[in-house]
Amino acid sequence: MVQRFEFAVEATDGRARTGRIRMMRGDIATPAFMPVGTVATVKAMKPEAVRAIGADIILGNTYHLMLRPGAERMAKLGGLHKFMNWQRPILTDSGGYQVMSLSDLRKLSEEGVEFRSHLDGSKHMLTPERSMEIQRLLGSDIVMAFDECPRADRPREEIAESMELSMRWARRSRDGFDSGEEHASRSALFGIQQGALDQELRQISAEKLIDIGFDGYAVGGLAVGEGQEAMFGVLDYAPEMLPKDRPRYLMGVGKPDDLVGAVERGIDMFDCVLPTRSGRNGQAFTWNGPINLRNARFAEDTDPLDDRCECDTCAHYSRAYLHHLQKSGEILGAMLVTEHNLAFYQQLMRKMRGAISAGQFAQFALDFRQDYLRPSRG
Amino acid sequence: MVQRFEFAVEATDGRARTGRIRMMRGDIATPAFMPVGTVATVKAMKPEAVRAIGADIILGNTYHLMLRPGAERMAKLGGLHKFMNWQRPILTDSGGYQVMSLSDLRKLSEEGVEFRSHLDGSKHMLTPERSMEIQRLLGSDIVMAFDECPRADRPREEIAESMELSMRWARRSRDGFDSGEEHASRSALFGIQQGALDQELRQISAEKLIDIGFDGYAVGGLAVGEGQEAMFGVLDYAPEMLPKDRPRYLMGVGKPDDLVGAVERGIDMFDCVLPTRSGRNGQAFTWNGPINLRNARFAEDTDPLDDRCECDTCAHYSRAYLHHLQKSGEILGAMLVTEHNLAFYQQLMRKMRGAISAGQFAQFALDFRQDYLRPSRG
Repeated sequence: MVQRFEFAVEATDGRARTGRIRMMRGDIATPAFMPVGTVATVKAMKPEAVRAIGADIILGNTYHLMLRPGAERMAKLGGLHKFMNWQRPILTDSGGYQVMSLSDLRKLSEEGVEFRSHLDGSKHMLTPERSMEIQRLLGSDIVMAFDECPRADRPREEIAESMELSMRWARRSRDGFDSGEEHASRSALFGIQQGALDQELRQISAEKLIDIGFDGYAVGGLAVGEGQEAMFGVLDYAPEMLPKDRPRYLMGVGKPDDLVGAVERGIDMFDCVLPTRSGRNGQAFTWNGPINLRNARFAEDTDPLDDRCECDTCAHYSRAYLHHLQKSGEILGAMLVTEHNLAFYQQLMRKMRGAISAGQFAQFALDFRQDYLRPSRG
Repeated sequence: MVQRFEFAVEATDGRARTGRIRMMRGDIATPAFMPVGTVATVKAMKPEAVRAIGADIILGNTYHLMLRPGAERMAKLGGLHKFMNWQRPILTDSGGYQVMSLSDLRKLSEEGVEFRSHLDGSKHMLTPERSMEIQRLLGSDIVMAFDECPRADRPREEIAESMELSMRWARRSRDGFDSGEEHASRSALFGIQQGALDQELRQISAEKLIDIGFDGYAVGGLAVGEGQEAMFGVLDYAPEMLPKDRPRYLMGVGKPDDLVGAVERGIDMFDCVLPTRSGRNGQAFTWNGPINLRNARFAEDTDPLDDRCECDTCAHYSRAYLHHLQKSGEILGAMLVTEHNLAFYQQLMRKMRGAISAGQFAQFALDFRQDYLRPSRG
């Protein structure tokens, strides 16, 4: 019988780790990339295609889903998995980040965040307790603690106060999660480390989270405009502050080279809208770096997007065709490039897992960067 | 060895017929509905899904493709089939209809139509000879003669003159097609009957076409706003003016009840953007009539779109989910409802073929109308 939540590191190579999370709805091979399914759909992809390209888990957004179709309605309809026809694990965020970035007229207090919906102006209150309740109503497998995520460039005092608030909310999230007994018995709760770019605050945050105790730990508050160098600077110390035997999740990251650098620094899980959003805009990721399919130089290019890629798009369509679909604003263009991008991300994760298992991650990272980051490709 | 073009009527029931077209790229069971792939994509569908729901042939648009990516470029890229990853038959229209409805600043002469592209204002000339050349460059399996299609409500004299012009163009189309020897040896050419709602003009047109000789014959100039009753009025006599041993194609039609009424009157082939366009707008066809998924009454409806439908959308998704996707403007909403609509159309054709084979078409049509056209469903 599969446990509620198990994580085992199967191999390490430097600080990089590969392992496996076991949950009732399925296993998650780590390092893992989670495609984002914001409003109960991984945009432009059927769920069976998301699975076919190798995703073990996807992400859903509490903020969006609480507004439409609504958490209580989702529960009534049988939960998010049934609603969107995805039977494997789903991680839901807490709504904390998006309520601050997307909603109107928000008011932050010790209690939580009061805000108006960006859809219809309706008034809502999000608290740690309500966030836990919503994620329970959605039927989430991995629930994220409710936190606040300030901009990394705010004054230290502000970052510290925000972090302390997030840690009090982490405690309330733990209690709120545990009170949902039946759901708590088959799902997991992750805490989120804050502290922006300040090592001391990151340490305090980590200790408080460990004191509360979570199934996994996220490094939050990054990928908010600080740049890759600053992010890697934090990742040089932050993951090691978190328990070795629990998965570490870097939220909202990132570009393929971000993922390689973060895995190198001990991260196990990622999510990002980049492959899906880029896919809709005609930007494709390849082993030789990103390319923009709208560029006229692809109009007669009969090559596949990437001749090393194993996806259906690369097997059956030319760059010229994908260029044509992008120029024509065709939905199939979004579908095919999204599928390629997500497949590329999954292939990247699979190769990283293989390289770590083989003790060759440093060489893999070197080779990857040589191809992916070479300065000019015209 | 499969011939260039064969058509056999396998059963008749009243004026309704069922049969099979055999071409080098595959068979086409008739009556057939051809999904429209305007700019080298059946919108929001991967080609393997178009095939999986039962389509034997799709339609491509000469007007759109000559402008983007361009006919010569398409030939250079290996033709339309390879470009869009569809290896079965493709019928291309002649561009005649769309050059008149979509282009800017068109000038009609005996020679052809001069016009400016709706995309970039560039100047082009479309003639019967150039239309044949473009369809050859695209690699079309069924080529349509170049014609002019006036509004059905124009004065009789204008309709007559236009029809006579189209018949002279039909002759030039035949000659132009035959001059493309290698392509002519593996593709087919269809003529298009004109004459709007005038029985005498339809008769003259039919005789002139038969005199030239074509592989199949289209009933053109309908579905241009004349209404179902007027259309059926023409279909009461027009198909029988055309050779019994050749397929009869009603262009641009139509709603499910149009298809049933037209098959009843001896039509073998159809194309229409309705199932794909409606799919993107949240209108779904069901055996109980069309429904609009944007309607709030579907917000908590856990039923499938149609419980008699065999498509993937109906097997896995609720009306509530499809409603949610439509309200959220999600691409997957367009994908799932398009797939259902095209599958519904193919199931309708399959049932009609079965009913004709069984000699029960009248009963089928009665049952269909009782469910599909019942006056009020809330």
